[in-house]
This record gives sequence, C-alpha cells and structure tokens, in this order.
Amino acid sequence: MKTGRMEAFTDGVLAIVITIMVLELKVPVDGSLAALAERVPILLAYVLSFINVGLYWNNHHHLLQATTRIDGRVLWANLFLLFWLSLVPFVIRWLDDSTFSPVATAAYGVVLGMAAVGYSLTEQAIIACGGRESAVARAVGADLKGKISIAIYVLAIPAAFILQWLSILLYVLVILLWLVPDRRIERTLEG
Amino acid sequence: MKTGRMEAFTDGVLAIVITIMVLELKVPVDGSLAALAERVPILLAYVLSFINVGLYWNNHHHLLQATTRIDGRVLWANLFLLFWLSLVPFVIRWLDDSTFSPVATAAYGVVLGMAAVGYSLTEQAIIACGGRESAVARAVGADLKGKISIAIYVLAIPAAFILQWLSILLYVLVILLWLVPDRRIERTLEG
Amino acid sequence: MKTGRMEAFTDGVLAIVITIMVLELKVPVDGSLAALAERVPILLAYVLSFINVGLYWNNHHHLLQATTRIDGRVLWANLFLLFWLSLVPFVIRWLDDSTFSPVATAAYGVVLGMAAVGYSLTEQAIIACGGRESAVARAVGADLKGKISIAIYVLAIPAAFILQWLSILLYVLVILLWLVPDRRIERTLEG
Amino acid sequence: MKTGRMEAFTDGVLAIVITIMVLELKVPVDGSLAALAERVPILLAYVLSFINVGLYWNNHHHLLQATTRIDGRVLWANLFLLFWLSLVPFVIRWLDDSTFSPVATAAYGVVLGMAAVGYSLTEQAIIACGGRESAVARAVGADLKGKISIAIYVLAIPAAFILQWLSILLYVLVILLWLVPDRRIERTLEG
Repeated sequence: MKTGRMEAFTDGVLAIVITIMVLELKVPVDGSLAALAERVPILLAYVLSFINVGLYWNNHHHLLQATTRIDGRVLWANLFLLFWLSLVPFVIRWLDDSTFSPVATAAYGVVLGMAAVGYSLTEQAIIACGGRESAVARAVGADLKGKISIAIYVLAIPAAFILQWLSILLYVLVILLWLVPDRRIERTLEG
Repeated sequence: MKTGRMEAFTDGVLAIVITIMVLELKVPVDGSLAALAERVPILLAYVLSFINVGLYWNNHHHLLQATTRIDGRVLWANLFLLFWLSLVPFVIRWLDDSTFSPVATAAYGVVLGMAAVGYSLTEQAIIACGGRESAVARAVGADLKGKISIAIYVLAIPAAFILQWLSILLYVLVILLWLVPDRRIERTLEG
Repeated sequence: MKTGRMEAFTDGVLAIVITIMVLELKVPVDGSLAALAERVPILLAYVLSFINVGLYWNNHHHLLQATTRIDGRVLWANLFLLFWLSLVPFVIRWLDDSTFSPVATAAYGVVLGMAAVGYSLTEQAIIACGGRESAVARAVGADLKGKISIAIYVLAIPAAFILQWLSILLYVLVILLWLVPDRRIERTLEG
Repeated sequence: MKTGRMEAFTDGVLAIVITIMVLELKVPVDGSLAALAERVPILLAYVLSFINVGLYWNNHHHLLQATTRIDGRVLWANLFLLFWLSLVPFVIRWLDDSTFSPVATAAYGVVLGMAAVGYSLTEQAIIACGGRESAVARAVGADLKGKISIAIYVLAIPAAFILQWLSILLYVLVILLWLVPDRRIERTLEG
C-alpha cells in the first residue's frame, strides 16, 4: 500500500482541525479593548493548540517522507492519532466556556497525551511494516522525546487539579521540547 | 477517466465529516467532572461515528486501489455515498439534542444504512465499468459482508422504537463486523 | 501554469461547501416524528444544493480533464465561481430561518445564477488560454446548456416574489437539465 | 524536502478559511429586503476577505511553482502565515458582532498585516533555502509591493481609531495593489 492517500487524508483532517478551532472561540462581547483583553487567555490557548497541531503535521510530514510502505495497522494507528487531534477544538471550547476549569485543563492534557500515544503507535506500526532496518526505524531510535512528552502529560493531568497554570506550563514545555527541530530523520536519510 | 480527483474529493469530504462532527457536540455545561460524565454517551456516539467514517475511508482506499477506470455512474454512486455520510454530523447533533430519542436513533440507522447502500452501489458501478473479470469484481465477490450490514441496519431501525439501546448495539455489531480487516482485495491483488 | 493546484483548491472548497451546509441546518426541535416532518422542506433544499454542488464538481472535473494550460485569468474566473458557491450554505441557512421567504428564495437563485455565470467565465477563460481549436473549445461549443440555465435563473429570481414554489421548481428544472450527463467533452476527447 | 505536502496543507487550510468565513456571518433577521440590506456591509467585508485569501492563494501558488526545495524554516514561516489567515474568520465575526467597531477594524488590519509579514517571511525562507541566485530570489527582488502593503497596514491600524472607514479604504487599496497580476515570477521563469 502506498502512502499517498493516507498523507492526503491526514493533511485534510489536520488542516480542518487547525482552522476550525477558531470557529469555537467566542469573539469579544463588544468592540472595546477591554473585551479583547478578556479574550487574551483563550487566544493564547489557540496559539498553543495551533503550534501543537502544526508540530504534529510537521513531524508527520517528516515521518512519512522516510516511509515507503504502509499496511492496515498503520492506517488505524494514524486514525487513532487523528481521533485525538480532532478533539482538540472540543476541549478548547470547553476551556473557554468553563474559563480554564481544572477538569477542562486536565482534559486538554488527556487529549494531547493520547495524541502523543497515537503518534508513537503510528511510528511503531510504520517500523513494524518497514522492518527494524528501515530508515524510519533507525531515525526514530528509542524515541526518547516521544516518551518524555507522554511522561510530562502524565504529570500535567493531575497537576491541573492542584494548580491549572502549572499544567499549562507543562503543556508549553512539551511544545518547546519539540520546537527544537527533529533533525534525526533528515540526518539519517542523508547519512 | 482516472480516479485521482474522485479520491481527492472523497478524502476531502470524509476528512471534513470526521472532523466537524465534534463541532456539533455541546461541551459540558460547566467545568465539573459531573458535567463531563453527562457528556459521556454522546462522546461514545462520536467515537462510534468516527470509527464508522474511518472504516468507510479505509475501505474506499482499498477499493480505489484496485480500480483503474471510472465513469460518470461511479462518480454519482460515490456522491450518493458522500451525501449520506455528510448527514452523520446532523443526526449526531440530533441524537445529542434529543438525548437519544427513538426517532433520532432510528434516523442514525437510516443514514448509516443508506451510506452502506451507497458504498455497495459504488462497488457495483466500479465493477460495471471495469468488467466482471476485473480485480475489484473478483475481490468483492458476492459482498456478503455488505449485505449483512444492510440487513442489520434494516433490523436496527424499527428496533429503535422498542429499545434504543438494542439498535445502538446493532450499530456497534456492524462496526465489529468490519473492523476485522477486509483482506479480500489485498489478497486478490497479490494472488 | 499547470492545473494541479487549481484542481486541488477547487476540490477542497467544494468538499467543504458540500459538507458544511449540513452544519447550518437546525435539527428537529425534539425527538418526535412530527418535529422531523417539519424539517423535511429544508432537508429537501439540502438535497437540492448537494446535487447542485455535486454537478459543479462533476462538470469541473470533466472540464479540467480536457485542459492542459491555465493562466491568471482562469484562476480568477474559478475563484469567482467558488465565491458564489461558498454562499450556498449562507442562503440555505437564510431559507431555513426565514422559512422560504420570497427574498431568500430569490437570493438562492441569485447565488446559483452567479455561480452558473462563474462556471461559464471559467470555461471561456480556459478556451481563451488554450485556443479556439483546443479540446475544451470544441467540446463546449456554443454552451447552450449553460446559457439556458442562466436564462432559467433570470426567470426564477423575480418569480420568487410571486410564488416561491414556482422558482424552486425552476431550480429543480436546471438540475434535471444537467443530470443528463454532459457527454460532449468525453466524446470530443475520444473522437 | 519536496514542496508537495506543504502545498497540499496550505491549499487545505486556505480552502477552509475561505469557506468557513461564511459560517460566521449572521443571516438577515427575517425574510425582508430591509433585513438583507442591513447585512450588506458585512457581506462586503466577506467579499473583501474572500479576495484577500484568494490573493494569498494565487501568490502562494506562483511562489511555490518557482520553488524546488524547502526546509524546516520554510514550513514554520508558512505555518505563521496560515496562523494569521486562520484568524480572518474570527475578526470578521467580531466586525459583524460589534458592527465595525474601531477596535475590531484595527484588529482586522493587525491580522492582515501579520499575514503579509508571514508571506514575506515565507518568501525569505524560500530564498534562504534555494540561494540568492534561485528563480524565486530573482523574481521577488526587493519585494516592493510586499513592503508597501505592510506599510499601508501600519497606517490603517491607528486610522481605525479615528475613522473606521478610512482604514477599510486602506485595506481595499492593498487589494487593488495586488489585483494587478504579479507577473514578476512568471516573467523570470520564462526569461
């Protein structure tokens, strides 16, 4: 099975997720600067989520570039990833409506954490399909970054019940971890 | 006629259907765990629908891989399928608003059942275009699975008026029937 | 300039238009059959619009298959077409909210009529770019069907102020006119 | 890295942005012509935004046609551009809700101005990746048009607090500046 349509479908879903999040945001209640200021936290949450989905798209792009064959297991692991990413607009809206309540903040972590698990499952399914000696297998290696991210989400979820802003800080931390470009795959492909 | 643009259009519509369903869901009324718990049934309906649309995408992907030529009849059979799938977000919203009323539960079955009919029409149109000896014709065969699915929907629709949860169980049954990967086409292509 | 990205963008916009129309529809007010029956007219308007957008996609698909070169004028004529099609979900929602008021019914005709003009402009721009002797030029010919459609819309718009259902009948007539598959391009390509 | 998937993702996001703007618009309050007339300003804002996004798509199309290689920096500059364009539906809705309040009018300018900056960053990143002697570098040159646009937005934002319609006029001016087709890249490619 070739990767073309899976890439196209993933691009489609991610393009929609990244764009409709903004449909979920309530606009300022009136035309004043104060009303805009009130909306700043949720707009920052939007920025955070946009970067997150952008990162997934970027990494997915890199991952699939090194992939030549996929099978049914890869398709389902990828759908699992897309499922959790599709919930991002939902939790953002809840965050907005409940003004960053602890439960919604924790739910945001659950959704992002499960997406991280889904990405990791997709990687593993691609490696299982392409073989331990494939470019992806060598590039991903032990996938320390992926494991650290999941660990941070595991911490951030209970943290939301004690101090929401701590867990939001942890979500930002994961982003920073990934914004450092992942040169592993590019390097392996070139080397 | 080549299959490229029909695949792209189908991918686009399915990517949107699968993603906007979540726009239709109401978020929990407040930031409490109880409010989240109240939303669990509709979230499960979302999971169910996500898997259903995912299955259609997966099977469509397999079907088109074995297809080399299409004609106007295939395009319209495919649009018929997409029409019914586009109604999935609508019935989900209704299920949510009417808290799984019998009529909405039956409507969900009508939509999924008609989508199953649409998929079957698309298969038949592809076979009519490619010939009885084509890879698709041999792979699909008598399409027992498709016929059983439609039969289950025919049972599930009246069942909703007696006991909603029975028909929801039948919808889950169809999913389980299809989650067993459909290796027929892959096998025929390889053999 | 090649046609690839214009096709991809058009597919994207049409896939979204055809899918989000359903987001605009209000679900039945409760879970009763009576509430569903009340929604039948707008659901029929949805079916009508789905077929219309499907027809545009189908014809666009055929048109671009016969096209090898495009230029800036084609891109803008195509954007003009997409603009009017993007308003279809808006007028449908208005039709729904105003329960098929004469003005909204006329507006629906304006939107569809302008889309028909846009399609005709796109055809002409493609012919201007490819030359009078190109496959498209010979296939489209005098484009009688396109001209008749626009004429019907010109009649249907004022008719809405006298009798809405007459203009809706005229909209259905245009669809029937086009559902007869447009074999001109296919025939010219083969011949 | 090839350009295919970045083009596909950008097409997806732009197709969605251009289409969902209309979801944000409130339909006329009733079926009267007066109610429609009341909606004319926001419909014109929609036309303006549609042309703006259409221009970005057009220019992006031209730019990428001259591009053969991209890197991570191009991907992120492009995501920055898409981020600001994704906010267009949000500010349009705010413009509508606050009936063109000065702050919302200024915010519209901020969003469009930052998108212009994002486009310019994408151009620079492509040139940095392809080299000073690449087709894009020669075609874009000093990018006077891009710089003038950003300058006009810088003027239009404070102008909104004095006279909203002046800044809207300035937004229209930028569009007119770009509607004159940008033949630089095509000419350089041919020459």
